[in-house]
This record gives sequence, structure tokens and C-alpha cells, in this order.
Amino acid sequence: MLQLHFSPTKPLFSPPNLRIRAIDAAQLKSEHHRSSSPLKIAVLGFGNFGQFLSKTLIRHGHDLITHSHSDHSSAASSIGARFFHNPHDLCEQHPDVVLLSTSILSAESVLRSFPFQRLRRSTLFVDVLSVKEFPKTLFLNHLPEEFDILCTHPMFGPESGKHSWSDLPFVYDKVRIGEGERCDKFLKVFENEGCRMVEMSCEEHDKHSAGSQFVTHTMGRVLEKFGVESSPINTQGYETLLDLVDNTSSDSFELYYGLFMYNQNALEHLERLDMAFDSIKKDLFGRLHQLYRKQMFGGAEVHSVKKKIEQRLLNSAETTPLA
Amino acid sequence: MLQLHFSPTKPLFSPPNLRIRAIDAAQLKSEHHRSSSPLKIAVLGFGNFGQFLSKTLIRHGHDLITHSHSDHSSAASSIGARFFHNPHDLCEQHPDVVLLSTSILSAESVLRSFPFQRLRRSTLFVDVLSVKEFPKTLFLNHLPEEFDILCTHPMFGPESGKHSWSDLPFVYDKVRIGEGERCDKFLKVFENEGCRMVEMSCEEHDKHSAGSQFVTHTMGRVLEKFGVESSPINTQGYETLLDLVDNTSSDSFELYYGLFMYNQNALEHLERLDMAFDSIKKDLFGRLHQLYRKQMFGGAEVHSVKKKIEQRLLNSAETTPLA
Repeated sequence: MLQLHFSPTKPLFSPPNLRIRAIDAAQLKSEHHRSSSPLKIAVLGFGNFGQFLSKTLIRHGHDLITHSHSDHSSAASSIGARFFHNPHDLCEQHPDVVLLSTSILSAESVLRSFPFQRLRRSTLFVDVLSVKEFPKTLFLNHLPEEFDILCTHPMFGPESGKHSWSDLPFVYDKVRIGEGERCDKFLKVFENEGCRMVEMSCEEHDKHSAGSQFVTHTMGRVLEKFGVESSPINTQGYETLLDLVDNTSSDSFELYYGLFMYNQNALEHLERLDMAFDSIKKDLFGRLHQLYRKQMFGGAEVHSVKKKIEQRLLNSAETTPLA
Repeated sequence: MLQLHFSPTKPLFSPPNLRIRAIDAAQLKSEHHRSSSPLKIAVLGFGNFGQFLSKTLIRHGHDLITHSHSDHSSAASSIGARFFHNPHDLCEQHPDVVLLSTSILSAESVLRSFPFQRLRRSTLFVDVLSVKEFPKTLFLNHLPEEFDILCTHPMFGPESGKHSWSDLPFVYDKVRIGEGERCDKFLKVFENEGCRMVEMSCEEHDKHSAGSQFVTHTMGRVLEKFGVESSPINTQGYETLLDLVDNTSSDSFELYYGLFMYNQNALEHLERLDMAFDSIKKDLFGRLHQLYRKQMFGGAEVHSVKKKIEQRLLNSAETTPLA
């Protein structure tokens, strides 16, 4: 049921030039036509990331139509896409694929108010959100049963994918695919761009990405708050931290909050980071405490540091037990 | 007094082949000879970093003699240096330069027990520790007045400087230099290797490096404790974090503790990192708290996350006030 949802008794909603005459002939003809004929792709949420993906989809010959709450009509026309202010108008265009490229936080409300009934009964829904279990559940709960579902995460953006998508990971889960060629043709765009195609369940994705993507964003944001600055004597390691902050701060807080809130594993990782940081502090202060008690520091050189740290130890002792 | 410590009334301790006949002629001859004649360099503390630097010093034609508490005689002979178990024997070799390459933590005890009286009265002392105010004070307090002092920090190591030292920062402070050519000849090694030569006071170095080097090491160690692991879907940002951990964990905890303990500015930066991390947590939980109170989450999708976070909020409220 999950893999093949349409049966011979259901009508096949293929474009007019692909009307079936006889099964075998039609299959051959269909394969030939589909690999050369473009997809009509509707992009919902046409922000930074949606526009970034659309450019490449258009370059691969596909027909792009878009809709957003904000007016992105000029951005659309500048890359050769059509913009629809009214989602009903968009649906009446009968796209083959609807690509959900909203923020994680607004995905549910966009989907709840979307006029599915105007679409063809078999349409492929794809999302590109940075969490995967959440949109999968959302699609399964809200989409009509006849719709196909492909959950994807292109793990790059306008910065990291500026020059090339070669070797950048593209994660996908064929959650419910009946009409396989339409889905394959969509995936082909990323394959042909050289992405590292990783087929993985939404659950597995979220486990991995909480440990990597969420932790990376957290470190970048901590360093941004800390206020890292370039100095005349940057080490190579420090240069990589500066790059990290640059990359993180170009993403919105909305995205970061989405990664935290809509990935069940993020909270646990935040807590583990917290514990790791505490543990480092305890290593430093604990070691010092030991030495200090043994009166090993007699020299005048470290006197002022000693004083500061002594104060710190007294403060810490009130809240945290020392190792 | 700090810049030129020897006066015409003091004898000049130059090698026999550079004995002065007449001021002008001697100056010319001296410059010629010194630029071609090798330095005899004694390395105190012949660990990982000392061996790494010695290889290059030998390649530049200098004569290397070494001493360590541990027996590194075979490591020395393998790179063409001579090892002395007894520091008195080392000093009787009359090195032009004594290079202190111990750990930060053992620098003081090594220097306290060192038989300076066996050295020539004018000897250049150089250190390569990762903090600078501390060895400067140590040298000024313990070395005889006739000795020259050069404090340096080659800001790279066996990992980052494996293939080339080109463009890697070399920080130095001519704390007390009378015999300039000997010092220049030593610096020339790093210049000729393509290092970015940065002349900077020890105090300024420590201010900059607490903000960069200590922070980098702290982040690397936090991520190491956290237990970052490569996943099938690493983003580029995450790859840089994995590299950071690799680089940091190849350095000893002794070095990290030295950076913390012997740099007056490190404690302040550790506290600022702590505050930045707390602030990020407050941003996340505070935002959630707001939304939660407004009952904006009605869907079943985020229910289990909500529960966990509700628990967390209750715990946090007991210790930290929410933003």
C-alpha cells in the first residue's frame, strides 16, 4: 500500500500526449517521452532556498510555477518562473510535482490551507525541509491518498552550493511512490548535478542530522554570540571557526529554531553539549583546585590569575560540585 | 637598557674567528661571517614540538644540541642532533642560542635548575611557548642580565605545519636584544620558510591568542567530549568541526591547561563562552515558552518533543530565569 498506491481499476492521470493505448507499447512510449518531456513543478514558499533550487530545476528544462504569501513575482520572472498570488490559480495549472519549500515553522499552516482538490488526483508532493520526520507525518496526515510523497533534504544551500553541487549530500525517502518515473525524473536533476544521493528513512535522517547539522548550527551561534573576531595571529583552526560563524549567521534563526523544535533528537544533543562544556570546565577548575591545595604555585608570575580563579572556585562551589 | 644591554666597557663574547680588530672592518667581516656561519642551538625540552622545530633548524645548516628530562637520544641522533643527558655537559658546549621548548607547566622548574653559569656570558635565550607574558617574566626574573631574550610563538605545529610553513604566523617580541645579528639569524629560518612574521608585544599576543587559540581549543575539546562522529550525511560545516576535533585532540591536555592557566585573559574568555551558550539556550527555550503559553502547538506531530521540553522548562525554571 505504501509503495504502490494506484491499482489497475483507478484511472491513470498522465499528460494528454501520454494517453495509454496498449500496456506494452504505452510503457515504452511513456518511458521515452517522460525522460525527455519536462516536469511542471509548483514551488510553495519561494524564499531564498526555493529560488536557489528553482534556478537549477529550470536549467534542467523543467517548467516552474510558484506561490508564496509574500509577493516574489519579480524574483520569479527574473529566473523564468511564473508567480501565482492565488494558490487556486496555481493548482489549476495541474503541476506534476508540488515542492514544499517553506520554513519548517510555517509548513503545517501552508499545507492546512492548501486547495488540494484543484490538483490532479495523482500529484507528487516533495519537501526540502531540514527535518524529515515532521513533514513526512504532515504529508501522510494531510494529503489525499492518491498523492505520491517524496521527502528530501538537499544538505547544502546558496552558500555551500554556490559553485557546484558536486559531492554534496542529497537525502531522500520514497515515502509513498506509485508513479515512479515522475519521481525518478525529479531525483535525476540532483543526480545529474553530481549530488551524493543518499536514500535513507526520515527517522534515520533526523537521528544523524541532530548530531551533525544541529550541533554545527549551535556551535556557530554560540561563537557568534561570543563575538569571535579576526586577529592578526589567526591559527588555521581559528580560521575554520570564523568560516563556521559566517555560514551559520547567513541562515535565519527560524531555521535554527526549526531544527531544534521539529527534530525529536535535538534536545538530547543540546543537553549533551551542555554537559560536555561543563565537563571541560570541571577538568580545568578541578585540576587547578588540586594543584592549588597542594600549594604548588608559589611564584609571583601567576598571582593575579590565581586570585581570579580562587574567586571563581568560590563562586562555582556554591552552584556546581567540583570534580 | 632593555634594548641594548651591553656597553663598550663589557667584553664582547663573540666566537674566536670573529675577534674584533678595528670597529669598521670588524663590523663588515662580522656581518659576512655571521650570515654564513651556523648557530649552535641548544634545545631544552626535546618533545614533539622541539623535535619538529629542530628538523628545520638543522636543514638550515645550524648545529643542534639537546637536553630533556626524558631520554630522547635516539630521536636526536635520527635527525642529526646531539643529545646530552646532563645539562652541565650541554652548557659546556657554549651554544649561541638556548631554545626553551618545554611544556608551559614545566618551564619554570626547568629554568630554576638550569646551570646558566656554565654558558658564555652572552647567550641568546628564546622560548616557543604558546603563552608569552609568562615566559617573558620568567626570563627577566631568572636569566643573568648579560643574556639576550627573544620571546616567540610559532603558531603552528607538526599537524598544521606538516607540508609547509608558508603563510603560517610566527609571532616574536625582541624583549632584550644586544647582539642583533645572532637574533636575526635565528629569525631568518622562519622568514625563509615563508612564515608570516608578526612582531608583537607578549602582552598583545596573549590578548589576541586567548580570543582565538584558547577558544579554538575549548570548542575542539567540548566537541570531543560531546563525541562527534562522522555520519553518512555530513554537511560541509560539520566536516570542519570534525577536522577541528582531530587537530585539538592531537594536542595534549597539558597544553590546553597551560593556555588556560598561564594566560590571564583565558578565564574571561571561558566565562564569555559560557554566557554565550546560556544565551543560545535561553533564546531557544524562551521562544518556546512564549509559543507554548499561547497554545500555538495543537498538532499531535510535536507532542513528544513538547513533553520533553515542558519537563526541561520546569527544570530550568528552578536554576535559570528564562528570557
